[in-house]
Amino acid sequence: MSSWYKSWILLTGFILFYVAYLLFGAFVFSIIERPVEDKLKRDIQVLKEEFLNQSCVNATSLENFLERVLQANQYGISILPNSSASSNWDLASSLFFANTLVTTVGYGHTTPLSDTGKAFSIFYALLGVPFTMLVLTACVQRLMHLVTYGPISMCRQKIGLDPLAATAVHFAILLLLVVLGFFVVPAVVFSYIEDTWSFLDAIYFCFITLCTIGLGDYVPGEKPGQNFRSLYKISVMVYLFVGLMMMYLVLRAFHRMADLHGLTSFFQLPHCDEDIEEDKEPIIEAGHEDQHEAEASAKPLDPASQTSYNTIKR
Amino acid sequence: MSSWYKSWILLTGFILFYVAYLLFGAFVFSIIERPVEDKLKRDIQVLKEEFLNQSCVNATSLENFLERVLQANQYGISILPNSSASSNWDLASSLFFANTLVTTVGYGHTTPLSDTGKAFSIFYALLGVPFTMLVLTACVQRLMHLVTYGPISMCRQKIGLDPLAATAVHFAILLLLVVLGFFVVPAVVFSYIEDTWSFLDAIYFCFITLCTIGLGDYVPGEKPGQNFRSLYKISVMVYLFVGLMMMYLVLRAFHRMADLHGLTSFFQLPHCDEDIEEDKEPIIEAGHEDQHEAEASAKPLDPASQTSYNTIKR
Repeated sequence: MSSWYKSWILLTGFILFYVAYLLFGAFVFSIIERPVEDKLKRDIQVLKEEFLNQSCVNATSLENFLERVLQANQYGISILPNSSASSNWDLASSLFFANTLVTTVGYGHTTPLSDTGKAFSIFYALLGVPFTMLVLTACVQRLMHLVTYGPISMCRQKIGLDPLAATAVHFAILLLLVVLGFFVVPAVVFSYIEDTWSFLDAIYFCFITLCTIGLGDYVPGEKPGQNFRSLYKISVMVYLFVGLMMMYLVLRAFHRMADLHGLTSFFQLPHCDEDIEEDKEPIIEAGHEDQHEAEASAKPLDPASQTSYNTIKR
Repeated sequence: MSSWYKSWILLTGFILFYVAYLLFGAFVFSIIERPVEDKLKRDIQVLKEEFLNQSCVNATSLENFLERVLQANQYGISILPNSSASSNWDLASSLFFANTLVTTVGYGHTTPLSDTGKAFSIFYALLGVPFTMLVLTACVQRLMHLVTYGPISMCRQKIGLDPLAATAVHFAILLLLVVLGFFVVPAVVFSYIEDTWSFLDAIYFCFITLCTIGLGDYVPGEKPGQNFRSLYKISVMVYLFVGLMMMYLVLRAFHRMADLHGLTSFFQLPHCDEDIEEDKEPIIEAGHEDQHEAEASAKPLDPASQTSYNTIKR
């Protein structure tokens, strides 16, 4: 009975702390952004007044005009002449949109204009989002043996580390490599290609993208007159897919480490599905088996062969 | 050896089919949206010409003016007088932003303006996204017993269904309830509150939000002069959190069903972490134990007590 209470007290604590975290974030964002917003608002009002003074347009007709301009802009259609050449719905851009839809990134720099487009988006994502998850999981499942189990058992056999230390060291190295390869290096490339992006902007873009937040304030290949736009868009799609795979891999490796360190038990969370006993009695004998055989051990556990217990502690 | 090949052929097939699915989506989106975009583009050019003819402004100064207007609009700052009253960074709006950031929905209707804001977003999401996943998982883990295991074992004991049928019937009912309670009913409410939204718009919003795509073309509470705006924003946040919980619950229930039906084995995916043997020998005796005791059985499996095998088939 007391463990039941403990479990719910833990959950309530979690939720309260989560609300506090949200409030803290709101407070900081409000403090940081409010003055910048106010300044920009004043600037834009001054700009409007100057424009009205210079021209013989009255305020109402300008506002009516601007309302329609902003409405069109919401759908990614700019009134500016240099951006009217490229379409948001050519094949490469549509492919990019479809990709950001099914990966749940959803930048929203272009959105469906028609009701048919909206209905198709629902239908497309309904199948596409689980399908993407399936493909990502299938890829990561096979990569885990190459990137996680292999190196960990090698770490243990060559350096003689204990399972906990080996998992921690492996996770630290994996994290470092992913941060370098999927955040720092791409950010350098993006800040080089997109000449209005600073390095911070590019890192912010990589982070917002690979967390699938996808705010859409920075979207690559949207500058008018960009060279090799289609190729660039497709490269970004590949980056997105492989990056998401890596994020998932890091998450799985972390989950596995948390399992070994007893964190999932403490928080009463589901365990990582991988065999955590594996570290204690490695079946894959690195050095004795070739890569093909190591991959073969990636075979799924037969549900019928897996014994597990539901412990009731009172 | 042949099973290793089979596994990789399956994965290659998956990836090829995925690329085909993306291309198909791109093709359909392009066909649907291109004509609508072209029409809107022409309309906006006509509008611009009409405006230039009516006024004594030259094209260049109008374009310079519009460029700055659109730039400000990208940050959620509108030049229109009726929208200047409410801030995007008051406490309720900041809370909403923080919430869409950590849940990875990321509408992007407001985005950080300053470099400090961008840096803080990275830091905040870095902790916030995993934390949200933790809280969601912890909640769903406890709900699973109430919403999934309880009803399934009741189904089997009262109606005498076999495990596969009971899981399938339960999943169908759960899905129906979630679609009604988290898509249809909220869509009716949203289309009532937001008077520019049709029912399709509202369903599209619910879907795009609860899949965490968050395109941001429809964001509740953004209309100027909305009553009880803060309260409304907070209600949407609660809807978002509970909705995500339900989506995760449905996904877990589906994963569990796929496990029982041998789908995860077929696709060589990780198994659902929950004890799938449970259905065969239910430990929770519904009717004999009270709710508290049923909840107590939600205790995690002790990693040390869980035996599993890594089968190598050659």
